[in-house]
Amino acid sequence: MAREFVIRVPASSANIGPGFDVLGIGLNLYLTINVKIDAEQFGEESKKDPFNCLISYEGEGADEVPFQSDKNFLTQTALYVLRVNSVRTFPLGTRILVHNDVPLGRGLGSSGTAVVGGVLLANAIGGFGFSKQRCLDYCLMIERHPDNITASMMGGFVGSFLRDLSKSESERVHQPLENILSPKKGETSTDAPSNLGTHVKYHMSEKIKCVAIIPQFEVSTNKSRSVLPSSYSREDIVFNLQRLAVLTSAVGAENLDPALIYSAMQDRLHQPYRKVLIPGLSEVITKFTPENHPGLLGICLSGAGPTILCLATKNFNQIASDVIEIFRKKNVICKWRLLEPAYEGATVEEISKL
Amino acid sequence: MAREFVIRVPASSANIGPGFDVLGIGLNLYLTINVKIDAEQFGEESKKDPFNCLISYEGEGADEVPFQSDKNFLTQTALYVLRVNSVRTFPLGTRILVHNDVPLGRGLGSSGTAVVGGVLLANAIGGFGFSKQRCLDYCLMIERHPDNITASMMGGFVGSFLRDLSKSESERVHQPLENILSPKKGETSTDAPSNLGTHVKYHMSEKIKCVAIIPQFEVSTNKSRSVLPSSYSREDIVFNLQRLAVLTSAVGAENLDPALIYSAMQDRLHQPYRKVLIPGLSEVITKFTPENHPGLLGICLSGAGPTILCLATKNFNQIASDVIEIFRKKNVICKWRLLEPAYEGATVEEISKL
Repeated sequence: MAREFVIRVPASSANIGPGFDVLGIGLNLYLTINVKIDAEQFGEESKKDPFNCLISYEGEGADEVPFQSDKNFLTQTALYVLRVNSVRTFPLGTRILVHNDVPLGRGLGSSGTAVVGGVLLANAIGGFGFSKQRCLDYCLMIERHPDNITASMMGGFVGSFLRDLSKSESERVHQPLENILSPKKGETSTDAPSNLGTHVKYHMSEKIKCVAIIPQFEVSTNKSRSVLPSSYSREDIVFNLQRLAVLTSAVGAENLDPALIYSAMQDRLHQPYRKVLIPGLSEVITKFTPENHPGLLGICLSGAGPTILCLATKNFNQIASDVIEIFRKKNVICKWRLLEPAYEGATVEEISKL
Repeated sequence: MAREFVIRVPASSANIGPGFDVLGIGLNLYLTINVKIDAEQFGEESKKDPFNCLISYEGEGADEVPFQSDKNFLTQTALYVLRVNSVRTFPLGTRILVHNDVPLGRGLGSSGTAVVGGVLLANAIGGFGFSKQRCLDYCLMIERHPDNITASMMGGFVGSFLRDLSKSESERVHQPLENILSPKKGETSTDAPSNLGTHVKYHMSEKIKCVAIIPQFEVSTNKSRSVLPSSYSREDIVFNLQRLAVLTSAVGAENLDPALIYSAMQDRLHQPYRKVLIPGLSEVITKFTPENHPGLLGICLSGAGPTILCLATKNFNQIASDVIEIFRKKNVICKWRLLEPAYEGATVEEISKL
């Protein structure tokens, strides 16, 4: 019995404008996982891997990722979901070809795509039939910031949070990642509580495109978190709350109001502190406006950066090249992509099941 | 030439759930201002007031408000708007009968209704033809927290903020209230910059009603602000941001999800600190859930309190009487009202203009 299927997981941009740790957009730049299961063809070869899974990898990160299935983050995640559902290994003759277009460490949710991809891989391989909502529970056991995960899984423009947990649920969820991904011999990983994540999907005008300007250096999420203050003034908090309340509605209006969206995209919780890590950010955020760049709706740091995300309805080339020029003066090279919201989220397509 | 018109300004509830200083709902409990202008009938009598305005007042606050037009907050506000538009007094023979159903100092936006009423009064008297958006500018010169004001003026469920001001605008806006309301002789008050306030109106299911439980004591906004901390942890901020992002969409869903709305109504920015001022609040907020009170969607403090606002779709009597019972045990007497969102906001109805 051979089987073939394809999983596609969109990249994501989180921390949109005032929505620190809240808002995410799925973007049409994909992690694609081609899976073939054929014991006859690959059975013997797959035994070289401790869990019967041959991995090959092309695209972003190909030089960096490990190929053993209990070391690779994507297949580790899949093994976790399989294990808590009483499946100990991949089927004999599993071969996975990963093609990744999502750059690593750039603030485009590459880690989230691996988690979402891994959970969907296990769901398809185990034939568990879990809903996306249930799959999200497993994702959130591994990555507790729901913004990227939810955007990649559900697609579109989403707001999300982890619901309040009971004491026993909290103990299940808040344990070291290695306990979950690599339990000690004889121990099993913890199953995920139900409905961990709560989300809403906002209506976003189809006129809105996302210009992602991607500086060619990495910012680790940990470092990017370390520059944030431990406490904030009420004034700064209210500033973000007020803009968040307006932004989620303003992007869905029939007649988009650039001045409204631009001012609702402002942030005081993370961008001002991350300027030190990203030369050029400060200038881009203060100098680019809908007046001097018609079509521009708003600018923000994508996730923890360094990618800059511009929401816009036209003049994409001009906006991108002007941002790139600012970075060039700081000796930072950028790529850029014109992206659209990936409304559908992650998908699994069965190619053949014999 | 005689003229008669009626201004109706809805009460409002602000700080809805996680929306501290952001979210407000206009409520169908009104400040009603009946205005007659008739120089023949009241001309001589009106000269007793320095600005030609006879005021009478019934309902909530009738024993407390001053009746001289440059001392009464509502007519002071009207005089400010008239003055910056080159009108120095009310027309000879102005008679105003205020009927107020909005209790004072209870967190139902009574101060905001007076400001909105005053601005609309000036607009109607001066025949300025200002839009509601422009009238909001004048309101925001007097009351800088836009949540109550916007809800009373625009109606429905709204999110709002003051836009970023230029230095010269900021100097115009941020001056002592007495300079604006009572300028020294020879000086004039400052006109309001345009488009000070930005707001969006959310779609809110018509199934949602507002149960307002009104403890019979006053909490001053100043005192209620003084118990708040000066800084907050990132964790608490993100908690509110995440819930705010979900709440504004969740209340408009075709199929309302009580568990979702209930959890999105939680707050960590002001309610935990205001428990000390409002005996019973803590118990009400933790004990009442959609499980033990079917129909309940969420509970929050209304404005700075002490009013408790419950969003609900049924069982209004039961919810109210159970909340009242909690307060009774703390020796606090409550009234309650079943209210609906005032979708239309403030209105001016011309009765006759001869």
